[in-house]
Amino acid sequence: MTSRLFPALVAVRICPVPRAILEQIKKLIPPLDGSLHKGQSGRVGVLGGAMDYTGAPFFAAMTALRFGADLSHVICSPTAAGAIKSYSPDLIVHPILNEQSTCGQVTPQLQSLLSRLHVLVVGPGLGREPYMQSFAKLAIQIARESGTYLVIDADGLFLVGRDPSIIKGYRRAVLTPNVVEFKRLGEQIGVNPTAPAHERAGLISKLLGGVTVLEKGRNDLIAVDTTGNEANLKASHLSDLDEAKENTAETIEVDVEGGFKRCGGQGDVLSGAVGTFLAWGRCYEDGAFGDGSIQASRVPFLAAVGGSMVTREASHRGFVKQGRGLVTEDLIPELGAAFAEHFGSQARSGRL
Amino acid sequence: MTSRLFPALVAVRICPVPRAILEQIKKLIPPLDGSLHKGQSGRVGVLGGAMDYTGAPFFAAMTALRFGADLSHVICSPTAAGAIKSYSPDLIVHPILNEQSTCGQVTPQLQSLLSRLHVLVVGPGLGREPYMQSFAKLAIQIARESGTYLVIDADGLFLVGRDPSIIKGYRRAVLTPNVVEFKRLGEQIGVNPTAPAHERAGLISKLLGGVTVLEKGRNDLIAVDTTGNEANLKASHLSDLDEAKENTAETIEVDVEGGFKRCGGQGDVLSGAVGTFLAWGRCYEDGAFGDGSIQASRVPFLAAVGGSMVTREASHRGFVKQGRGLVTEDLIPELGAAFAEHFGSQARSGRL
Repeated sequence: MTSRLFPALVAVRICPVPRAILEQIKKLIPPLDGSLHKGQSGRVGVLGGAMDYTGAPFFAAMTALRFGADLSHVICSPTAAGAIKSYSPDLIVHPILNEQSTCGQVTPQLQSLLSRLHVLVVGPGLGREPYMQSFAKLAIQIARESGTYLVIDADGLFLVGRDPSIIKGYRRAVLTPNVVEFKRLGEQIGVNPTAPAHERAGLISKLLGGVTVLEKGRNDLIAVDTTGNEANLKASHLSDLDEAKENTAETIEVDVEGGFKRCGGQGDVLSGAVGTFLAWGRCYEDGAFGDGSIQASRVPFLAAVGGSMVTREASHRGFVKQGRGLVTEDLIPELGAAFAEHFGSQARSGRL
Repeated sequence: MTSRLFPALVAVRICPVPRAILEQIKKLIPPLDGSLHKGQSGRVGVLGGAMDYTGAPFFAAMTALRFGADLSHVICSPTAAGAIKSYSPDLIVHPILNEQSTCGQVTPQLQSLLSRLHVLVVGPGLGREPYMQSFAKLAIQIARESGTYLVIDADGLFLVGRDPSIIKGYRRAVLTPNVVEFKRLGEQIGVNPTAPAHERAGLISKLLGGVTVLEKGRNDLIAVDTTGNEANLKASHLSDLDEAKENTAETIEVDVEGGFKRCGGQGDVLSGAVGTFLAWGRCYEDGAFGDGSIQASRVPFLAAVGGSMVTREASHRGFVKQGRGLVTEDLIPELGAAFAEHFGSQARSGRL
């Protein structure tokens, strides 16, 4: 079994059997029987890539494609676009985040792009140049307005730490901090420093009004807590029914064995994996496939668990082959087998 | 056995059994058991890459990753950045060495970057454009101030030859001259031209105040000599204890069979390999792992021996496969097996 349940601080709902969660995740996986049109297995966007970083957005966006998304877009600075384009002809790279452009100029471009996306992953290779941080903030605002799922990673979390209001109460968001980012974020939003380690992810979720938190580490913790006052913020894209049902506090530990090499970039793969599950959740929600039994409010938590499981498995498989020499590029070809390992080869290939 | 000992000119300390050196090198190799965080297996930087050369810094930086470093940075001119980025998404490429920038502008950027690195490899693809030479000199000064290990190769050695004071007495440095560079450097710093060939590397070390010299050739010679007057220069990052203990003169010959094809770029692989061992030495020194029994003053010599052994082995393995058509890119995939050949498959994969 691949996950372990912690008693949540306020355990309104505790998942009794992790297998039930696996079964819920499986329902979000698009069928591969020729019944879907282009795009109905996910249109993923990654916002990041500027002067210093070009590999990170590539890893996130390429992961989405190898995970099973139909289309994968990178929204980046012109300073990064050439290199990112060169990594793969399968990516669609939009160099619209120009340092010389105003938010007013970029807004309609972002609105147009985001209207075509099911999820936006904000952060891989974003960096901290002020113009990139500004455009990331703008994109998050536009995503909220259109009900687009969000993954916030890396320097996107730096942005959230400085101004938590930009994400607060938006339950279609998954935050994916690593050890350092998690510690900083907890301090910035005022998590009680004496709280037990395994409860902190849930506390961050609660303080941020019910966003899902994926705390990366030796094992990954995935937490959601919508029981706090902040949960009363009306989430514009949840029906009243959803609002009532999602009053929950839950923390799960994913202990699928990962690799032991801690090369940079594996977090970008994770963000792309979670993003793809979220995109599938949106397609599911829109009725492209599935039985409609999974509530939209449940999607971010399931996506975080599924993304974590497959990424850790891919890291393990890459590590078995490459050992000490593992680089993140080695994870990409492992995603298919890693996915099949946990969700079945039928889910991978569509054939029995 | 892989190395042979020369009687050093002033043999304060002679290593009796090369196996003992191998065992010391092994102590610097980070464990691969999941106990380390990202970065604790080394953060390597390479300074080089301008108008003419882009492959050299790639070879050095990519070698670091395939050797086992967690993160590998290239610090280069904007004229080289696009190509270097395109070679691999796993590298982090900083195009901050702009010909139009002043040293005053670049200094804080270099300080910020170097504060995050365990080693800086100066030279691969550096070239001789005056602005690149100036920035390289600046980076060496900043590295000295922060006690960062240094590898000086290629046109970084041109810089040292013109102004030996920039490296003199800094015992955290390894110089890696090829035949031509070695001859020129010897002339520039005044090595007695009648000295026997196998003593010259030690003489250069002595005249430069105890830096480690890796003289590349048919066999590689690694020498350190801290017995000269120049050794009395107080190395700011060595304790008094180190200072006393490291009063040594030692020369080792590494005769691991290399390839017979002398394609350009193999020296860049070597510089990345030595750099990674130095980064591990820094992590070891900082207590990330290990038993603390290796003195910091010993690290450069061990790193040079280990880097030489693995690089020659990788060259041999590439040559067996490619023969006359060998190119340096062929060495990179051989590094893992070459490493395992000399330091054990457990050291490569973390498993027995």
